[in-house]
Amino acid sequence: MSATDSQESKCDVLIIGAGPAGMMLATWMARCGINARIVDKRGTKIYAGQADGLQLRSLEIFDSFGFADRAWKEANHLIEFCMWNPGEDGLIRRSDRVPDVPVGLSRFKEIVLHQGRIERFFLDHIKKHTKNSLQVERGVLPEALHIDENLVNNHSSDNYPITVQLRYLSEEEAKPAQSKGSVVNDGLFRSNLAEDDTEDLIANSKKNQSGTETVKAKYVVGCDGAHSWTRKQLGFELEGEPTDHIWGVLDIIPITDFPDVRMRCAIHSASAGSMMIIPRENKMARLYIQLTEIKPDASGRADRSKITPETIITAAQKIIAPYKLTYEYCDWWTAYQIGQRVGKNFERDSRVFLAGDAVHTHSPKAGQGMNVSMQDAYNLGWKLGLVVKGVAQPSILKTYQSERRRIAQDLIAFDHKFSRLFSGRPAKDLMDEEGVSMSEFKEAFLKGNLFATGLSVDYGTSMLVGKAGNAAEQGDGTDVSSKVQLVGKQELASKTPLGMRFPNYQVLNQASARAYDFQPKLASDGRFRIIVFAGNVVNPPQSARVQAFCKYMTSSALLAPHLDKNIEVLTLHSSKRIDVELLKDFPEVLHPFDARTGWDYDKVYVDDEAYHEGFGDAYGGYGVDRETGCVVVARPDQYAGFIDGVDEEGAKGVEGYFEGILVG
Amino acid sequence: MSATDSQESKCDVLIIGAGPAGMMLATWMARCGINARIVDKRGTKIYAGQADGLQLRSLEIFDSFGFADRAWKEANHLIEFCMWNPGEDGLIRRSDRVPDVPVGLSRFKEIVLHQGRIERFFLDHIKKHTKNSLQVERGVLPEALHIDENLVNNHSSDNYPITVQLRYLSEEEAKPAQSKGSVVNDGLFRSNLAEDDTEDLIANSKKNQSGTETVKAKYVVGCDGAHSWTRKQLGFELEGEPTDHIWGVLDIIPITDFPDVRMRCAIHSASAGSMMIIPRENKMARLYIQLTEIKPDASGRADRSKITPETIITAAQKIIAPYKLTYEYCDWWTAYQIGQRVGKNFERDSRVFLAGDAVHTHSPKAGQGMNVSMQDAYNLGWKLGLVVKGVAQPSILKTYQSERRRIAQDLIAFDHKFSRLFSGRPAKDLMDEEGVSMSEFKEAFLKGNLFATGLSVDYGTSMLVGKAGNAAEQGDGTDVSSKVQLVGKQELASKTPLGMRFPNYQVLNQASARAYDFQPKLASDGRFRIIVFAGNVVNPPQSARVQAFCKYMTSSALLAPHLDKNIEVLTLHSSKRIDVELLKDFPEVLHPFDARTGWDYDKVYVDDEAYHEGFGDAYGGYGVDRETGCVVVARPDQYAGFIDGVDEEGAKGVEGYFEGILVG
Repeated sequence: MSATDSQESKCDVLIIGAGPAGMMLATWMARCGINARIVDKRGTKIYAGQADGLQLRSLEIFDSFGFADRAWKEANHLIEFCMWNPGEDGLIRRSDRVPDVPVGLSRFKEIVLHQGRIERFFLDHIKKHTKNSLQVERGVLPEALHIDENLVNNHSSDNYPITVQLRYLSEEEAKPAQSKGSVVNDGLFRSNLAEDDTEDLIANSKKNQSGTETVKAKYVVGCDGAHSWTRKQLGFELEGEPTDHIWGVLDIIPITDFPDVRMRCAIHSASAGSMMIIPRENKMARLYIQLTEIKPDASGRADRSKITPETIITAAQKIIAPYKLTYEYCDWWTAYQIGQRVGKNFERDSRVFLAGDAVHTHSPKAGQGMNVSMQDAYNLGWKLGLVVKGVAQPSILKTYQSERRRIAQDLIAFDHKFSRLFSGRPAKDLMDEEGVSMSEFKEAFLKGNLFATGLSVDYGTSMLVGKAGNAAEQGDGTDVSSKVQLVGKQELASKTPLGMRFPNYQVLNQASARAYDFQPKLASDGRFRIIVFAGNVVNPPQSARVQAFCKYMTSSALLAPHLDKNIEVLTLHSSKRIDVELLKDFPEVLHPFDARTGWDYDKVYVDDEAYHEGFGDAYGGYGVDRETGCVVVARPDQYAGFIDGVDEEGAKGVEGYFEGILVG
Repeated sequence: MSATDSQESKCDVLIIGAGPAGMMLATWMARCGINARIVDKRGTKIYAGQADGLQLRSLEIFDSFGFADRAWKEANHLIEFCMWNPGEDGLIRRSDRVPDVPVGLSRFKEIVLHQGRIERFFLDHIKKHTKNSLQVERGVLPEALHIDENLVNNHSSDNYPITVQLRYLSEEEAKPAQSKGSVVNDGLFRSNLAEDDTEDLIANSKKNQSGTETVKAKYVVGCDGAHSWTRKQLGFELEGEPTDHIWGVLDIIPITDFPDVRMRCAIHSASAGSMMIIPRENKMARLYIQLTEIKPDASGRADRSKITPETIITAAQKIIAPYKLTYEYCDWWTAYQIGQRVGKNFERDSRVFLAGDAVHTHSPKAGQGMNVSMQDAYNLGWKLGLVVKGVAQPSILKTYQSERRRIAQDLIAFDHKFSRLFSGRPAKDLMDEEGVSMSEFKEAFLKGNLFATGLSVDYGTSMLVGKAGNAAEQGDGTDVSSKVQLVGKQELASKTPLGMRFPNYQVLNQASARAYDFQPKLASDGRFRIIVFAGNVVNPPQSARVQAFCKYMTSSALLAPHLDKNIEVLTLHSSKRIDVELLKDFPEVLHPFDARTGWDYDKVYVDDEAYHEGFGDAYGGYGVDRETGCVVVARPDQYAGFIDGVDEEGAKGVEGYFEGILVG
């Protein structure tokens, strides 16, 4: 549109900010078929550098969309974490090696890849799953937000309680300022050492009389980063304080005789500060380097002009001595000041939500920023999608803050401890109380490591998680209790904890004998899953229980209309594969018939030995009895929501769980 | 160019035909940086259907180029082979289940994917590896070929002994004729039931005065199918005979109560003929159906007009009874007459070569056609590439016929036996000597199965394979013996047979601890590999042997100029990973230094336990002594060419091997 046009439009969900959180949200909107838009004030895609670590849970999420393999193939994989500390002579030496992620948790490992590639995977996936190809509108800046409080509780489909004024920037305006004199792109413009430029952009743009648009929206999500404009409009604050620790970041191809430059390393020098090495793809490494000689001034902020690639590499050379370290190629650099902050509120009126850096900021070294941000949006997206479609009750939206603010609080506590231990001077001996004990550092790393994978997330009881306990205590204090608290039978799937993500084990397709990972069968397409652990179906009484479960389910007025559409039924039985046949031994609802494509052969699986890949022992892994089985309900984000027996009573239990969620 | 233009041009390699063999050859040309062209008379890419099985060795080859993962992800995987035979009541029942491919041979399994997708992977790869993007020139028909016999033995780089006249077809001319009245694309136009249309195309095209081009080429490769125009120009014939067996092929989404429709199945009915089921991607299955009611006429050919999808499905319904079989969706269909033929000659003057269906035709049911064709071209491409570049001696080109014609002969013998057993009526009992014994069928399947994987290929002794025996006897009779027959020390790598493909085991990168499959490190980039099994390098005498090997190699006037450029050196040692360090414990040639990117961290591997993936025991797998190691030379196509000790004598041996190959 031309610079002076102004227009009005409507959309169901407006996403502000196209970083990882915004992209993840847009992906859900595409998969749920929601009329959504995503705008970003920056005129171009990601520059070099920026966040790049992908943790285990993020990869599982990518896999649920079907593009984890692209990241897995292109990325560098982190295998070993090496700790380097001063010896008695004061020189650094390798004191320990541990696996970078705990062994046996996941089919994935931590990997490192340019954020621009990750955005590409999102964009390709969005394109594949939208007819009109939901596109990122770049150079588009929000400048006013209004919520009509009289309308927020009216959930009729023609009600748009939020008004956002958008302004179109020129190409020049949308380009972030780079440091003067630097030939390499840097990220200082978005570092927390820099002031936010949003107000300047609006002011300039108004002067230039650029075009505007008034958008009426049902929901707005601010994924607009640490300086979140959306957060400011809501009047919400972050709680927490910065520290004095300033760190520089270099993405270079290192030329060095340091032996562990292809490992993830934490190097504590005796007195020159600390450094972390993250080996990357294309021979690069990211170096996080403590800048001990740069301190914040009276304002609490460091002088950015003193920080250059040269000052950062010089600091690194002191830390890594006596090893040599130089580079010919630098891809990107930045600097930041360590601080931990978390938002008091993640949403307003269940209409405007904040996700990612907009509600939690911390140091980047644990590789959590992008991951937790994407996981925020992954938690929110399907809930919004189902509510907009009129499938789920709007009350489920409250669980977003309850579930994710709690995670953010845990993250900030973890980062606070880890950063202190990493930025501190190593203790000279046991008597050196001001120094950091290296055994304490190692212990903190190992503990933090499980948290960092994202796999320890355990959402509290709510209408979405049928488990015992107090909803406010298990979350962030928000009341998300259901009218009637249902408690699933955890003991029937003892290793599939309610509130945690459905784990992965190998299973075989009953019809083709092919081995599959079972978790990605719980695809992120907006559907709940009823996973029927059918048990030993060659045993007639057990077969009768499965029949009874299916009969009740298909005749339930609540459930039946949603089957396959909003609730997919997957089956995993434990008889020998060759002792049963799909068509003969399983009720039709477990392998639906289609007049054009015949029976569905992709819904019934078996926990049996594969010809080539061995035995997955999924029943053992999920903690389910091989004779009597059970039923697990997984939310559209793969978190276990309810467990009951595979019989008529169990079907009533499942019906009860969905009564608290679905629009009746 | 316009229709009446005529022009002259030069190219090093002209490829005629853009099917799987032509694509594979073009891929090698791209990877070797050769000035090549590829033309095809058809105006469009592949139609639906056509060959689609990918065998294990083909997938290993794809992996050596880096795109096996794309095929692996999209394809249907074949896991189990089910045999159905008449019981005593004359009704078919499942008599056996066996794994579709032998267990433990490869990291891959047999997969099934539309040939058009496979072409896409080739085209994408070619695009990635050529600056000017070697493109398939479609609608281009060769109409004259001339070899200047006086020039064929002159290998100077400005000598082009072959002249080919090309003719440009109009879009209409280049479109294959489809069966009248059929709404579904069929493949009868290229079935062996149809006459070749090349002469008609040329005649029509001349009438239309379409444009021509005269190409001067150093080498020409005919990958132009069973009716090969190139073969006819050379005056070469195929040897062999057709049979009376006519088969129909349907690609449909089957609607059936037959329980094994997602398995690969061989069904022998009592008297209605046989059928094979190959489950495919997107819910489809390919059915090979014996048409017992259609017989060849006096001319030896069946009447095509009697064959329609309706007659084929009717035949299938009789075979599969009492199970029901129908379809709503048919993607493609064709028919063919079984016959086995192999070319007398695969090349002329080491200047014009034939590959794929141009030199061997057989029944498609063993899924060999596309695979053996691609493997022909895979064998030829790097040899041509290295000769054109002036790196290798032209005498190595003789090994193409010696190695591949022998394989074609084996293939035809296998197919002859398998087809007879499959098309025959099952024996009613032991006394029924005219019937086919079902136990004999199973035995033949299991034996043939190893052959079909492509992994049992064992090339004979030649200048490229330093092993004992007679070159003519081990090949097809062509003399490919080297002046001085070198015999590698097979006992030093007892499970890495000379002449067979270098097997795959898991190894770890020394610098990053990441687990890798070792075989794909022998990438198809036109380079030989010297694989230094360095043994237990923490043992000083062994370390000294490795040093001596490297010292001789780097000071060899023959080898040194080729290192890294045409010969890559990869190292696999057997000490504990954490007991050695890359920079300290290995000579520089094993991890070369580059001024811009530092040390090469991707060339030294270790056979040690991985954190997450267990122990590969590669030394055990390759049959190499963990203390003393050895050296294996692999050809650019991954076949083991030479083996010697990892010491100065071994380096001299390796030098001797390359004396017979490289231009000195």
